[in-house]
Amino acid sequence: MSTRERGDQDFEARVRESFAKQGLMDTLGASIARVLPGAVEIVLPASPAVSQQHGFVHAGAVASIADSAAGYAALSLMPSGAGVLTTEFKINLVAPAFGDRIVARGRVVKAGRTLTLAQTEVFAERDGQEKLVALLTATLMAIEGRAGVSD
Amino acid sequence: MSTRERGDQDFEARVRESFAKQGLMDTLGASIARVLPGAVEIVLPASPAVSQQHGFVHAGAVASIADSAAGYAALSLMPSGAGVLTTEFKINLVAPAFGDRIVARGRVVKAGRTLTLAQTEVFAERDGQEKLVALLTATLMAIEGRAGVSD
Amino acid sequence: MSTRERGDQDFEARVRESFAKQGLMDTLGASIARVLPGAVEIVLPASPAVSQQHGFVHAGAVASIADSAAGYAALSLMPSGAGVLTTEFKINLVAPAFGDRIVARGRVVKAGRTLTLAQTEVFAERDGQEKLVALLTATLMAIEGRAGVSD
Amino acid sequence: MSTRERGDQDFEARVRESFAKQGLMDTLGASIARVLPGAVEIVLPASPAVSQQHGFVHAGAVASIADSAAGYAALSLMPSGAGVLTTEFKINLVAPAFGDRIVARGRVVKAGRTLTLAQTEVFAERDGQEKLVALLTATLMAIEGRAGVSD
Repeated sequence: MSTRERGDQDFEARVRESFAKQGLMDTLGASIARVLPGAVEIVLPASPAVSQQHGFVHAGAVASIADSAAGYAALSLMPSGAGVLTTEFKINLVAPAFGDRIVARGRVVKAGRTLTLAQTEVFAERDGQEKLVALLTATLMAIEGRAGVSD
Repeated sequence: MSTRERGDQDFEARVRESFAKQGLMDTLGASIARVLPGAVEIVLPASPAVSQQHGFVHAGAVASIADSAAGYAALSLMPSGAGVLTTEFKINLVAPAFGDRIVARGRVVKAGRTLTLAQTEVFAERDGQEKLVALLTATLMAIEGRAGVSD
Repeated sequence: MSTRERGDQDFEARVRESFAKQGLMDTLGASIARVLPGAVEIVLPASPAVSQQHGFVHAGAVASIADSAAGYAALSLMPSGAGVLTTEFKINLVAPAFGDRIVARGRVVKAGRTLTLAQTEVFAERDGQEKLVALLTATLMAIEGRAGVSD
Repeated sequence: MSTRERGDQDFEARVRESFAKQGLMDTLGASIARVLPGAVEIVLPASPAVSQQHGFVHAGAVASIADSAAGYAALSLMPSGAGVLTTEFKINLVAPAFGDRIVARGRVVKAGRTLTLAQTEVFAERDGQEKLVALLTATLMAIEGRAGVSD
């Protein structure tokens, strides 16, 4: 496996430290569950604090953890010192997001020098069972040498 | 102007009451600024509570208010009693979102019987000046006669 | 397996007959290679007739076969008599599309009563090897009982 | 107006020469109608050659001219010698595309050094009247110094 494919040895530490700086994840109550090379899982407990008007988890909260999962999956394969920014994402919401918790699993589809394509599947967990609620594709940009943008 | 085009007379009350039920908007600190037929503005003060790792406002927070602005723009033109759900959205993030506050302006592009297309422009305000930071397009679905899904 | 999951017995005939009516596919030189329940493969020989300005296959040609593959994957699971229309799609182009031929493999992610989400992976074949060049997600709508829209 | 905003003086020649090299546009029967700095219009006569199965213009043909219009709007603002590639686009199809001809009007939303965001509105013309049928947003990448990728 090449350096490009696995990133440096401390990719997990880089991802977890960067995630800890995302104030939004703390505000939503999201936590990072797993970090593998090119794959990251983020979990969000369902609660009224992240709801939309019918009591489901808000599409924006679903998108927030899905975007972070895609972004950190991408970052895990980038060289140490690089920062990651989302340039665009699209999310399809295929079922109302309700249950005990929401799980976003991001993985890299294609890692490039500047742009990486990642995809996140989002599931709602109810009574120990998972149901697909959303699918996101995102383009992530590696930023190198810009002050203040490093992960 | 037809009923379809302007919605019922109390569209503003319907939108504001529904918005008040979105726990996520309260958690983020977002508020609804303007409600016109087919157009809604939502404002989010920038703060560490909605940040990503470099201190910018998180793409997920930007997307959350942009999605709500699109959804309520759509709801404002739907008949009384209908509920609105987002089926998909895409957001392009064209500049880092930082400043004093983030303003999302959603408007309906095409209102259909079942599906509505809406678009939201998102600006960062700094020192009284606005800069475009994101553009979202969303498909919203009108839900009628489903228990628990009414706005 | 339920009727919903597999569609009727003649799904393959319905898909192939409908495909044969798509003038664009004939104009591009595309053909339908495989039809399974919820999965369709379309093949496009690379040629100057479908190129962009640098000699790669045009993103629009790639998107055309990817959209048709997604649409027919969706149609294969719809009841006999239903028509299918694309309401939106997004495509990420991760590498220039050049080679001997372009292969689009669509599959249904989530089949709903009205809306179906499908995804298509597009590969360029060169010297017998495949390389991922694009990823598309599409929302397809089932149309029933509208004159002129049946497949 | 800066050089960045208007491109070089011969942007129109560069765009028209590049368009003439797109084999797909010729195959579809599309022509370039107007070229302004940051805005390009492409026209496609409706015909069975570009149809889908119900006789409407195929979403892929609509997307093809919409993508080219976005790409050339972006190219018109890029420095001489740069090439343009689409990295992603999303299209919402809000009405069946039928009529005498289809008109795609692309314009730049935000021009950046590497990435440009452009948007295209697509109209169907019938009996001299226009109706919105699709809305596309695209990310275009400027390529400089890569052999074979110059416009």
